Amino acid sequence: MSFKRKDLLGIRDLEVDEIEHILEMAASLKEINTRTIKKVPTLRGKTVIHLFYEPSTRTRTSFDIAAKRLSADTYSITASASSLVKGETLLDTLKNLEAMKPDIFVIRHTASGTPHRMARHTSASVINAGDGMHEHPSQALLDMMTILEHKKRLEGLNVLIVGDITHSRVARSNIWGLGKMGAKVILCGPKTLIPPEIESLGVQVCYRVEEAIADADVIMVLRLQKERQQQMLLPSLREYSIYYGINRERLGKAKQDVLIMHPGPMNRGVEISPDVADGPHSVILDQVTNGVAVRMALLYLLGQK
Amino acid sequence: MSFKRKDLLGIRDLEVDEIEHILEMAASLKEINTRTIKKVPTLRGKTVIHLFYEPSTRTRTSFDIAAKRLSADTYSITASASSLVKGETLLDTLKNLEAMKPDIFVIRHTASGTPHRMARHTSASVINAGDGMHEHPSQALLDMMTILEHKKRLEGLNVLIVGDITHSRVARSNIWGLGKMGAKVILCGPKTLIPPEIESLGVQVCYRVEEAIADADVIMVLRLQKERQQQMLLPSLREYSIYYGINRERLGKAKQDVLIMHPGPMNRGVEISPDVADGPHSVILDQVTNGVAVRMALLYLLGQK
Amino acid sequence: MSFKRKDLLGIRDLEVDEIEHILEMAASLKEINTRTIKKVPTLRGKTVIHLFYEPSTRTRTSFDIAAKRLSADTYSITASASSLVKGETLLDTLKNLEAMKPDIFVIRHTASGTPHRMARHTSASVINAGDGMHEHPSQALLDMMTILEHKKRLEGLNVLIVGDITHSRVARSNIWGLGKMGAKVILCGPKTLIPPEIESLGVQVCYRVEEAIADADVIMVLRLQKERQQQMLLPSLREYSIYYGINRERLGKAKQDVLIMHPGPMNRGVEISPDVADGPHSVILDQVTNGVAVRMALLYLLGQK
Repeated sequence: MSFKRKDLLGIRDLEVDEIEHILEMAASLKEINTRTIKKVPTLRGKTVIHLFYEPSTRTRTSFDIAAKRLSADTYSITASASSLVKGETLLDTLKNLEAMKPDIFVIRHTASGTPHRMARHTSASVINAGDGMHEHPSQALLDMMTILEHKKRLEGLNVLIVGDITHSRVARSNIWGLGKMGAKVILCGPKTLIPPEIESLGVQVCYRVEEAIADADVIMVLRLQKERQQQMLLPSLREYSIYYGINRERLGKAKQDVLIMHPGPMNRGVEISPDVADGPHSVILDQVTNGVAVRMALLYLLGQK
Repeated sequence: MSFKRKDLLGIRDLEVDEIEHILEMAASLKEINTRTIKKVPTLRGKTVIHLFYEPSTRTRTSFDIAAKRLSADTYSITASASSLVKGETLLDTLKNLEAMKPDIFVIRHTASGTPHRMARHTSASVINAGDGMHEHPSQALLDMMTILEHKKRLEGLNVLIVGDITHSRVARSNIWGLGKMGAKVILCGPKTLIPPEIESLGVQVCYRVEEAIADADVIMVLRLQKERQQQMLLPSLREYSIYYGINRERLGKAKQDVLIMHPGPMNRGVEISPDVADGPHSVILDQVTNGVAVRMALLYLLGQK
Repeated sequence: MSFKRKDLLGIRDLEVDEIEHILEMAASLKEINTRTIKKVPTLRGKTVIHLFYEPSTRTRTSFDIAAKRLSADTYSITASASSLVKGETLLDTLKNLEAMKPDIFVIRHTASGTPHRMARHTSASVINAGDGMHEHPSQALLDMMTILEHKKRLEGLNVLIVGDITHSRVARSNIWGLGKMGAKVILCGPKTLIPPEIESLGVQVCYRVEEAIADADVIMVLRLQKERQQQMLLPSLREYSIYYGINRERLGKAKQDVLIMHPGPMNRGVEISPDVADGPHSVILDQVTNGVAVRMALLYLLGQK
């Protein structure tokens, strides 16, 4: 199949064969990253603009490495440096940059839906690099790629996502993606951090991590934002860690071949213990490696025009 | 003709045939930006350093895109990141960077005359990307290029510049440039924002925008800095907007084929109404597109040594 | 000889023939910087990540220019932008970036030993771009290269280092390097800024600059951090300048062919007078030029794998 979209805004919109196509492309591009000369001319003369209205080292660097290894030229515009400071509207910033003839915008914004709105106003391609609490599609794609590498399938797997579901775009994109690919998603966390009626998305919810751990093929541990405590959503980080932290003891109740995943950055000792983060079940660094491959695939599929 | 200058510091110094040469070069390079592979090897192995002592996304990105599309390597040094923090003098920073053998410095500074002083102390080329209230030559060149594209001539045109003339390097560079090219420049704005005796530069001044609008072939709307209000130069933004804002009603009194220009970033609803900014007369985004072409021309002409 | 190390962490570890090899390589690469096309394909497709936990324009730009002139792709991560903000550990940041398959990390950190610790945890090469008060090896190498260019030898030279020895990684790396190469190092500064028992490193100490100046072949003037005054280590900058500042009068007592060096950025009028900084003995800008060549050599030697 060929990939016909202008933009990659979320997992929710994607068809199963589109997800498969991206993951296959990522798997075939991944090898470039281990060559002596880690660079192919595919996107030579293409212009990629990273437009980040929310700080991020990891995701921006991952996209930037992906773009440059495909020989694109990249530009980085961050909120504090942008003319937003001078009161320009978001769309004026976009239209101005568009007038400089970029091929792809990689956009992160604190407000859900912003990349979608921007995509409607530009003929350039837009990749959503995370919008508010909505979607983070390249993260879900790299998560699926990592599970596939280790489990050879997604269909029929039990994937347990533990943590602050309410505020997590990573959870939301994975719920859509894993669901489409036939995995069963179980959400677990304190009641204050799980949205009511989330079951309508086809997932299960449980509030005691011990209940779900035994059947899990994959445990995705979400980062706990320390701000949740001040927002009265958590009694304390320590209590969160006691009830929901994934540590060696809890892991003892899981399957022998369970995978431990985390989107990073980790709060070691809060949502995940150091021995689990660095232990034999952890595929956390594989996720990062696959992140570059998935982003190469997205840039390649959207930039080849 | 060949272009013999080391630096491009202002429009005031330029001869008419130099301006024409830059504009012709820009027109011929512009096409590169619409190719599938937007890159030519012209400045391969050249080093361009952006030295910005005043924040700017738009102009810096425009120069950066221009440089990379000509295959130059670029480096960005901004005031907050620079060793100025450590109390080094401006000239020591310049001499240090010069010792690393750059070909071109693109310099923006809050103090008028700084790029000129720096140009005298380096054998590298210097492009003034805006100095204080003095000049912003690449802006005037892109403005002239945009007018030329639409009107096929500059000579004999009536160009109305509306707004805060006193603090505007864009106005100053355009006054010099348009004057040299045979256009008639009319300045309009509150008395507090128009320098006394500016007529000595060969321009007309009027204080009521209605008077000048009927004859204008081009209306350049300047950005109104909101600080002017605190400086007691304006009663209020709202009053400014009422008396000087370019809106649909005022535009009704203009020529059918009048061009609306703005150097950006716009304060929508202050100096320009949204319907005018986005309306059929607006060539504001053409200005941005031509900005890349003009900067490619400048980098090409100075970097080809 | 071939260069077998994975990392370049300090001068203290290096053998004499390794230092010679680096300096010869730098001398042969230096010429690239004066070509019309300042770029060779040596490190094409290599990924260099600048990881700077301490602000620096000069050193980072020098490494960046060196890397790009060898055709490497570079990425810059600075402390304020990094996910350190989100409480991630240093090693997690490193491991994450490593998972993106870089070839070389260039690391600066305020804490002594950090690049060494990071080097043990990554299979990528690490170059120490300055760690706390410990080492700044590329600075010492460029200093030795500059002395060699002018004096044709290091052996037997008297090198006087004047200033705040205690807090200077530049002094420490030069003490190791110059000592290994057979030069005699004399340290001079206020007692409060010279570590006790530093003589055990094979250097001489004197507290009156006049005593040492007559025999010096090279005077390295260290930058005086203005903070030292608040830390009660100095009565005043003015008094420091009177007793230790290198000015024309003091220079009158030195050898005719003495070299004046400074690692920059300079506090003109404090540790060095403007006439000396800009005078005929000064090789301060040669140091900067050689900095690019030395860093090209280091990137080349570590990146060629």
